This record gives sequence, C-alpha cells and structure tokens, in this order.
Amino acid sequence: MIAEVLQRIQPFIHQSPILTSRRINDLTKATLFFKCENFQKTGSFKIRGATNAILTLNQEERNKGVVTHSSGNFAQAVALAAKLNEIVSHIVMPRNAPEAKRSATLGYGAKIYDCESSIEARESKMSEIQDLTKANELHPSNQIEVIYGQGTCAYELYTKVQGLDCIITPVGGGGLVAGTCLAMQELKGADVYGAEPMEADDAFRSLQTGIIERNESVNTIADGLRTNLGNVNFPIIQEHIKEILLVSEEQIISSMKLIWATLKIVVEPSSATVLAAVMNNKEKFAGKRIGLILSGGNVDLNKLPF
Amino acid sequence: MIAEVLQRIQPFIHQSPILTSRRINDLTKATLFFKCENFQKTGSFKIRGATNAILTLNQEERNKGVVTHSSGNFAQAVALAAKLNEIVSHIVMPRNAPEAKRSATLGYGAKIYDCESSIEARESKMSEIQDLTKANELHPSNQIEVIYGQGTCAYELYTKVQGLDCIITPVGGGGLVAGTCLAMQELKGADVYGAEPMEADDAFRSLQTGIIERNESVNTIADGLRTNLGNVNFPIIQEHIKEILLVSEEQIISSMKLIWATLKIVVEPSSATVLAAVMNNKEKFAGKRIGLILSGGNVDLNKLPF
Repeated sequence: MIAEVLQRIQPFIHQSPILTSRRINDLTKATLFFKCENFQKTGSFKIRGATNAILTLNQEERNKGVVTHSSGNFAQAVALAAKLNEIVSHIVMPRNAPEAKRSATLGYGAKIYDCESSIEARESKMSEIQDLTKANELHPSNQIEVIYGQGTCAYELYTKVQGLDCIITPVGGGGLVAGTCLAMQELKGADVYGAEPMEADDAFRSLQTGIIERNESVNTIADGLRTNLGNVNFPIIQEHIKEILLVSEEQIISSMKLIWATLKIVVEPSSATVLAAVMNNKEKFAGKRIGLILSGGNVDLNKLPF
Repeated sequence: MIAEVLQRIQPFIHQSPILTSRRINDLTKATLFFKCENFQKTGSFKIRGATNAILTLNQEERNKGVVTHSSGNFAQAVALAAKLNEIVSHIVMPRNAPEAKRSATLGYGAKIYDCESSIEARESKMSEIQDLTKANELHPSNQIEVIYGQGTCAYELYTKVQGLDCIITPVGGGGLVAGTCLAMQELKGADVYGAEPMEADDAFRSLQTGIIERNESVNTIADGLRTNLGNVNFPIIQEHIKEILLVSEEQIISSMKLIWATLKIVVEPSSATVLAAVMNNKEKFAGKRIGLILSGGNVDLNKLPF
C-alpha cells in the first residue's frame, strides 16, 4: 500500500537525503541515520500527505478544489501540492501565523482566508468556506490518505538504509508516526518509537489510558507538535508503536543545537525531539541502528532559543 | 595539475554536495549553484589544502610532523589531515580561540600550544616549536601546495555543473580564490570573482595599487576573511581574477539569513559574502549560471547576528 503511495507521489516530491555524523554516533554509542525532510519541498514532510490526498481525488472532486486550516507547514504543503496538480486551494490561516509561512503559502497560489487563532474560529471559518465552495476538506494528520502519504518517508528511509533496528519520529497530531507504523508493518520492518515533548504529552497519556487524551496546555518550543491525536491515527499508533519517549524543553533545544552545529543543517525544534529521545535513553539505544525522521526546517531565525 | 591534486586528496575528503534554490534564483534572476563546503570534513574547505600540503611531504619530512598557527578552521583541517596520514601535528592557538574549535582540534589528536592572540605572539610561538621539533610549517593561504588543494573545490564544481559562466569565492587570506583561479585557468573555465567584506578590503585595494595592501582594521563578522593576502597568492589572483566585489556587513548578514532560511543549511558568515555579491550586483549577473563556493559552516550558535 505505502509502496504504491510512494510511486504515486514521487513525481511531486524530493527523495530527501539521509545524513550521518561520526560525532553524534560517538556521543550516543549508536549508529544514527537522519532522514532530512527539512530539505523536502516546502521545508517539511507534510507535502507527502497533502500530495497523496489530492492525487486520490477524482476529477469531479478536483474541480471543487481543497480546503484546510493551518498556521504552518500543512498550509504550504497543501498550497504547493494543489498548484502542482492544477487545482484550487483555500487555506484558512489564523492572523498570527508567521509572515514567512503566509507569504510562502500565497506564493504557491493559495487563496488565504484570515481568522482568529482559536481552533473554534479556524474550524468555523473552514466550514463557511467549505459550504460556499464545496471544496474537499484536508486534515493535516487525521485522514487516512494523509497518513499513508506521511508513511512514505519512513518507507524511503528503511529501504535505503540496511538493517535499521528502529525508527523514531516526532509525535504531534499523529499523522507522521501513524504513517510510519503502517510503513513498518507493511515492510515487516523496524520498531517504531515516537518522541513527544513533555509539555504536549497527549499521545503518551492516550497510550496509557487507552482513550484519546487532550493537551490542556502546550508550552513547548516544538510548535509543530502542539496538536492532538485523532480518531483515525490513534488506533494505528495504539496497535503498532513500541513506545513513546518524552523529552524536556532543555533536551529539545540542546539536541537542536547539536544537529545545527554538527550536521550543519537547519531543522525546526519539532525535528530535534527525535535526537533528544536518543540522548535521553542511551542505554536503550546503545549499539542500535536508528533511523531518525527530521520532520522539517521551517524555523523563525529571529526567534531562536540560543 | 589541479586534476592530479584532486586525485591525490580524494581519499581523504568529501565531494561536497551542490545545492540549488528556485527561490534564490527567482530573487537574483540568475541560476546559482552552491558548492557546500560546510558539509566538508572539519566543516570547511581548508582540509583540501592541508591534505595536499601533507601528501606532498616526503617520508623524512613526514617523520618530523607539521606545525601551524590558527584560531580556527585551518587548525582543525591540519589536525585531521595529519591524523589521517598518521603524522604529528603541532598547532599554536591563541588563548581566545573558540572553545568548540579548540576541542575539535584536540579531538583530532593535535598537540596544542597556547599563546596570546597577536600575530606576533603566534608567529614567535610557532618559530619556537618549529626550532624544537623541525616540523614542517604549513601556511593557511600563502603556500602553493595549499593553494592547489583549495583549487580542487572549484574544479569539482566546474566539472560537475554544465556551462558555468563564473565562480565566486570569498576572499580572505587569498588561498581559496587563488586556487580557484588556477583551476579555471587549467580548465579554460569560468570567470573568477572574489567577494570581500568592505571592512577587510585588502585584496580589493591591492588589485588597484598593484602592491599588497594590509587591513588596518577588520570589523567584519566574516571572521574567516580578516587575514591579508600573501606574496605567493597575490600574483596568481592579480593575473587571473575578473573582479573583486565588495559587500557590506548588512549584506553579509541578510544573505546568511537567506541561505539558512531557504537552503536549510548552516553556513558561516564568510560563506554568505558570495551570495551578497550577487544580490548586490544583480544586473551584472542576470541570466548567468553562477557557481558559489560556500566556504564553511563553523559558526558559534551562541553569537548569531539575528
């Protein structure tokens, strides 16, 4: 299934590079392979899911365009995926979305609709647009076509690197980690771990209680991971994931710095959670071959934590 | 000549990647190819020259080891090149050298000798070590074997990208730009431009007067470019270079930010001068295919200009 999805979206995405670092291997006593979705089109893995969701629409649906709400990476991803497939995209964006992301989204030709930043305001504005246009609603993480698309990243990583023991992905809304679970199930591949900020630990708690828990507060620098799991991805994660590892804000920041200084690449805080999870669990991972998904590189350079 | 040098050093260096960006091409109305020596071993192109200089020593010379003084990239380069060739390296380092560079140099097995930061203190300490050890002195930019080594970077770039019109390199001590001149002469290749900070414009002035001018002050963020030309590289530059383009501190910083935000890579301020030169001379470069050498990525993340 994921193999077919990859074949379908391949003309529209980059096969992102996989980097290694002797220094980080020395520090962790493991062998790490960094899958660099910061170099992906639009600067994050989200283009994979957006592209797959659009490519599975039929012609009648395509004529109506797509609609979503997003303040960040998914907005850009939907806008570019729609443009590449010559369909209209309607993006509801909170007024406080970063200017760089707004102008990138505009640059890809999306129609942008402003709203207040609350989730209620975003959803109500989206319903309004959807009623008006009949456009197809796309969800950033809780839609099976999107999840399959995100799974292609781990698929590429696992089939490119020999003998991976496990793959670690950041956990936010759950689309990437659920897609990774499905990819590894299909390949009878590596164990899947999730890395989640302590400050937005809904997935960790949901696995413990068996029901979808919500974040009461999200005081994490990892802005891509402030969202909650959904009813489509949670059962997949529940069934397949090995473990969710929590990381502190300090660990996210120091791992982000280590990646920048050593790999010489710009990644966003969400990406750094996966290295933080290894640094924080050295005994668990010692001697292993570990695939780490660096989810993106869209960071506000004027607001760095160092 | 440079072809042979490249063949000689190839087992010890990376062939660094070449990146492109549609967004930067749109901004400049040109087609830019970024040669990413920030991904080179030790994080800069300097390993090329250091390796070539060491490989051209005979066995008797090798037994005596090598000595240099450096606060930065050349120290790490010499230390690693010496280690890979199993010879001893003595590095004189000013006490105010960045801790990260000192520990990297130590990590490569160099013997480090502390001194005050003045050029006189560094040279006198180096003479002392040289008298004691009879080690071979290596100069970061004013030694022909080093210059040939640095020329391999442009050689790789020009032979990998079809139809380059010109190559732009940063200008500091003059080793990289002189090596690039020799490589393009050998290949009957692209025009060579240098990018130099206004605040350390010795090369620009030297070309005007025909004699080696010195920098009275060096208030530039491009710490790799604060050094002066030398008597070995100046005649090469004088004979072959098309032009030296000056860039302001503001242009360096905004170009550095553009590279980080768009290419998602970490480069040091010196590297950003080459893009600044294009941004500052759009009419000159419009429609051209331009190779830009990003010299390195060793930047202090605690002291960013943004």
